[in-house]
Amino acid sequence: MKNIVDFSKGNGLVTAIVQDAETGEILMVANMNEESLAKTIELGEAVYWSRSRKKLWHKGEESGHTQKIRGLYLDCDGDALLLKVEQIGGAACHTGKRSCFFRKLDQDSVTDVGVQVFDPGEVYKK
Amino acid sequence: MKNIVDFSKGNGLVTAIVQDAETGEILMVANMNEESLAKTIELGEAVYWSRSRKKLWHKGEESGHTQKIRGLYLDCDGDALLLKVEQIGGAACHTGKRSCFFRKLDQDSVTDVGVQVFDPGEVYKK
Repeated sequence: MKNIVDFSKGNGLVTAIVQDAETGEILMVANMNEESLAKTIELGEAVYWSRSRKKLWHKGEESGHTQKIRGLYLDCDGDALLLKVEQIGGAACHTGKRSCFFRKLDQDSVTDVGVQVFDPGEVYKK
Repeated sequence: MKNIVDFSKGNGLVTAIVQDAETGEILMVANMNEESLAKTIELGEAVYWSRSRKKLWHKGEESGHTQKIRGLYLDCDGDALLLKVEQIGGAACHTGKRSCFFRKLDQDSVTDVGVQVFDPGEVYKK
C-alpha cells in the first residue's frame, strides 16, 4: 500500500484531511509521513507528523481524545489522504471546539461558528 | 480578512479542502495563495494555485465544472481553508469521478469506490 502513496511531492509528507465518519463534518487537517501512516494503520488510531515539533503525534495522547479510524481514502494523485474517524471526546481542536474550522469568513467579517466541547484549560492541565 | 489567513508557514500557500455543501462529501484538496483566495472571494467560484503549472487555476475553466462557493471557513491556526461548494457538473476530479478520494485503502488492498460522472476523454477534448 505504501507504494501507491506519493510522499515525494510534499518532501516526505502528505496532507491528511480528517472527517467525522458519522456526521461528515470536517474536523481538522494535518500531515503524515510514511511512518505515521504505518502507525495509524497498525493502531487503528490517527498518528500524524507534527511539523512544528518534528515528531510523531499520536492524536489524543495527552487529552485522551483519540481518533479511531473508520475509513482511509487516497486521492487521485496519491498525495492526500482522507481519514474518516470516530472522534473520541467529541472534539478535534486544541481550542476544545469540535472542529478546527470554526471561523467563517465572509466578505468583510469573520464569525466564530464553533461548538465548544471542552475547556482546554481543564484538559491540557500540566 | 487577508490578515488572518497565514500564508507564511506554507511558503505563500494554504491548504484548501473542498467539500460538497449539500452532501458533505469531500471532493478534493488543493492550494491557494493570497491572489487565488482574493479571486475566489471576488468571483464566488473556486480559484486555486497550481503548484505544477505555477499559475492561477480557475477550477472548471476548461471543463465548465466550476465550484460555486457556498461557505468559506478558516482553521484554528489560520493555514487551512474549508470551502463548501456547489460542484457544477457533479464531479470534481479530473478522472471524471465525483470525488478525488476514490481509492479506499485497507490493510492489504486498494478498492476503487469512485462514482464516475463524466468521461474525461469527452470533457477534456483538445
